[in-house]
Amino acid sequence: MIKKGIYICLFLASFYCARAQDDSTMIRNFFTEELTKGKSYEMLDHLSNRIGGRLSGSPQAAMAVEWGKRTMEFLGFDKVWLQEVMVPHWVRGEKEQAKIFSGKEKTEVRICALGNSVGTGTKGITANVIEVKSLKDLEKLGRKNIEGKIVFFNRPMDPTHISTGPAYGGAVDQRGRGAVEAARYGAVGVVVRSMTLLMDDHPHTGSMRYNDSITKIPACAISTVGATMLSDAIKLDANTKFYFRQTCEMLPDVQSFNVVGEIRGSMYPEEIIAVGGHLDSWDLGTGAHDDGTGVVQSIEVLRLFKMLGIRPKRTIRAVLFMNEENGVRGADKYAELAAKNNEKHLVAMESDGGGFTPRAFGVDGPNNEADKMQSWVNLLKPYGIHEIKSTPHTGTDIEPLKKQGAVLIGYQCDSQRYFDIHHAETDTFDKVNKRELELGTANMAALIWLISEYGL
Amino acid sequence: MIKKGIYICLFLASFYCARAQDDSTMIRNFFTEELTKGKSYEMLDHLSNRIGGRLSGSPQAAMAVEWGKRTMEFLGFDKVWLQEVMVPHWVRGEKEQAKIFSGKEKTEVRICALGNSVGTGTKGITANVIEVKSLKDLEKLGRKNIEGKIVFFNRPMDPTHISTGPAYGGAVDQRGRGAVEAARYGAVGVVVRSMTLLMDDHPHTGSMRYNDSITKIPACAISTVGATMLSDAIKLDANTKFYFRQTCEMLPDVQSFNVVGEIRGSMYPEEIIAVGGHLDSWDLGTGAHDDGTGVVQSIEVLRLFKMLGIRPKRTIRAVLFMNEENGVRGADKYAELAAKNNEKHLVAMESDGGGFTPRAFGVDGPNNEADKMQSWVNLLKPYGIHEIKSTPHTGTDIEPLKKQGAVLIGYQCDSQRYFDIHHAETDTFDKVNKRELELGTANMAALIWLISEYGL
Repeated sequence: MIKKGIYICLFLASFYCARAQDDSTMIRNFFTEELTKGKSYEMLDHLSNRIGGRLSGSPQAAMAVEWGKRTMEFLGFDKVWLQEVMVPHWVRGEKEQAKIFSGKEKTEVRICALGNSVGTGTKGITANVIEVKSLKDLEKLGRKNIEGKIVFFNRPMDPTHISTGPAYGGAVDQRGRGAVEAARYGAVGVVVRSMTLLMDDHPHTGSMRYNDSITKIPACAISTVGATMLSDAIKLDANTKFYFRQTCEMLPDVQSFNVVGEIRGSMYPEEIIAVGGHLDSWDLGTGAHDDGTGVVQSIEVLRLFKMLGIRPKRTIRAVLFMNEENGVRGADKYAELAAKNNEKHLVAMESDGGGFTPRAFGVDGPNNEADKMQSWVNLLKPYGIHEIKSTPHTGTDIEPLKKQGAVLIGYQCDSQRYFDIHHAETDTFDKVNKRELELGTANMAALIWLISEYGL
Repeated sequence: MIKKGIYICLFLASFYCARAQDDSTMIRNFFTEELTKGKSYEMLDHLSNRIGGRLSGSPQAAMAVEWGKRTMEFLGFDKVWLQEVMVPHWVRGEKEQAKIFSGKEKTEVRICALGNSVGTGTKGITANVIEVKSLKDLEKLGRKNIEGKIVFFNRPMDPTHISTGPAYGGAVDQRGRGAVEAARYGAVGVVVRSMTLLMDDHPHTGSMRYNDSITKIPACAISTVGATMLSDAIKLDANTKFYFRQTCEMLPDVQSFNVVGEIRGSMYPEEIIAVGGHLDSWDLGTGAHDDGTGVVQSIEVLRLFKMLGIRPKRTIRAVLFMNEENGVRGADKYAELAAKNNEKHLVAMESDGGGFTPRAFGVDGPNNEADKMQSWVNLLKPYGIHEIKSTPHTGTDIEPLKKQGAVLIGYQCDSQRYFDIHHAETDTFDKVNKRELELGTANMAALIWLISEYGL
């Protein structure tokens, strides 16, 4: 009896060892294929350099939709389709202008309109400036100190955060809600310090929101160098004036699309593992890291399965979401259609933190799925993934799938350089390192393969 | 009795909890100080942009010695001194030239002389080229196929390695020993594919060695783009000729210095924890990542102790080694003097893999010190250090201290981008990210503080 038990133990042990070894070999294959014959970088070159910035509603966004569809069709995925979605159509207009008038000096500074902002009119706006560090400061100052002025939000991102995401999260309320809150006290415009930890002269755009019951005042971002100059000017001359001119405007919604491609699962085709990034980008740069990298990584994950001749047990689907940057309409549409079609999303993964060197996966699931996935960490450690951890924020585009029970997974690459270029003219192809991008792709493919093979 | 035991347990538990919390607070202080008031980046700006490339024996190397000494004196370290060392004095001479003659085509390609190489004479060398992938190929081909020719070593770094260090290690024998081995078979020159995973047009220099009993033939590196062109040309025309001209030469040794600064330990001043990088660099770029970052990080570690008002229990010492790139004379001199003066080096740490985002510490010690340090990993994890692991190679400059019993520690940052710029004209200040550099510095300071506090 004991002998029999030993044999069973030995059999099971060898079975699990063999399985672990098979898994590790399979994962190695994803990396070898990607690092030697990967197409992520080549695809990004096209998306970033040939198409360029892809603001929702722009001709470039339409070109990107067409490119995404054709690319996935060319790669021979089982099914490729478009999901129609109406998106906001905001246009930047002419190159923005801004000047500081302080003492007898007039200094030009670099700004850009915030996304969704109204324009200033062609003559621009000139007014005294009041500097604040937070939305709460407005309440303290009150209408008497704010009315008729331009409010200058100048709270920097906190550099003591080790990951830069929380530093961004701790400052971005100024950009998103600054105009609405300042307008409550009679401000005529807002200028917001760019959301970056870098001290340079590139303004960073990004979305802001209005409240229909409150006057819509124009909002722009100023470079961190410009913000320092403006703050210094105000210290020297309390009567400092700021001039800015932007001719941006919100046009009527236009038709656009999410692009979806899938490889059907062999055993559980009804269980979907989606992997995506957003196809739209801001217009100042060419949307290389935000989120060209997430787009090409998502397509490439499926391509790797095909190249390696792997038929997944579960259906894997690449989703290129439209309009993450200034409306999230594509993500909402995707979730709406998934619900309508009774699709079961086992997992939705997003890559939208840039294409930098791999660090971790963040998991948001209803049943401690991060804990269940711990046994896979050792398989991914040799490739730079040191953690699979619970996190409340995984990706903006996949969040609407949460209430349908999907386990959300965010690919987390190194965050140090992301906000250097995020939403700025510097978010270009040359900032992406080929191997860092490829290592991310292969790690995403590896985790998706494990989920497809073993479920959750 | 049981009750007494419980009280003791509770006391010990609370003691250790409090200690862990103190440690974690202290480590946090290093990061807050460095990320808000750090000087690493400013120092690197000076070393890289004001002084520039610092090849041993050059005026820039002498300026760097002076700068290092003055900087540490200005920072008020307890003692700052120079260690005289004679170093090789190799000079590059005029801008190198190279051409491929294939069929009726003549194509200019970018090369650079390898460090320590002889020149070609002012008329250059023109000869038929034979392409090989390894030193072993030479033996197979034999003298009849090699004599009178230029040998073209064209084995790429293997991109399937996840860390790039082993990919470099697997290819660099072509650069170091190619000329000696090819000369054994009568070759008249060698051209070596640049040691990089990037496909671009920047040649990467680096040291090569001669054997005094074998004819010294000139050796150059060709960019990866050039290497591809040359290989293609040979495929199309077996009679392809290569021309190159370089006027580099080795001059007599000159006097130079290691620069050393220290803060004396309060309890065990005789136990030294050294932290260093190498002050010399190649001449093509400005030695920013190799190894300006290691130099400024080493100085900054000591500066952080001073700024935070921490008197270490053990002596900590910043060492700026001279001549790592083409002789390692500074490192040998430092170890020689340490032995002569009966100094006890508890630990020697080096940062010489660039100033990229933190990943790990590698440890090479006589008594499994890496295992002993595992309890510290959780203290460093929040800051990007996921592993403290045993490794056979920590740093070229600290290796001579091994036989004196020092535990060697290599700071390991992310390796993906290092060989993109290593030894090339692209190793410049703009490739260094301020926060990545600072996070490295603070992690080095934190680990040194733990060692200083608790020993090994």
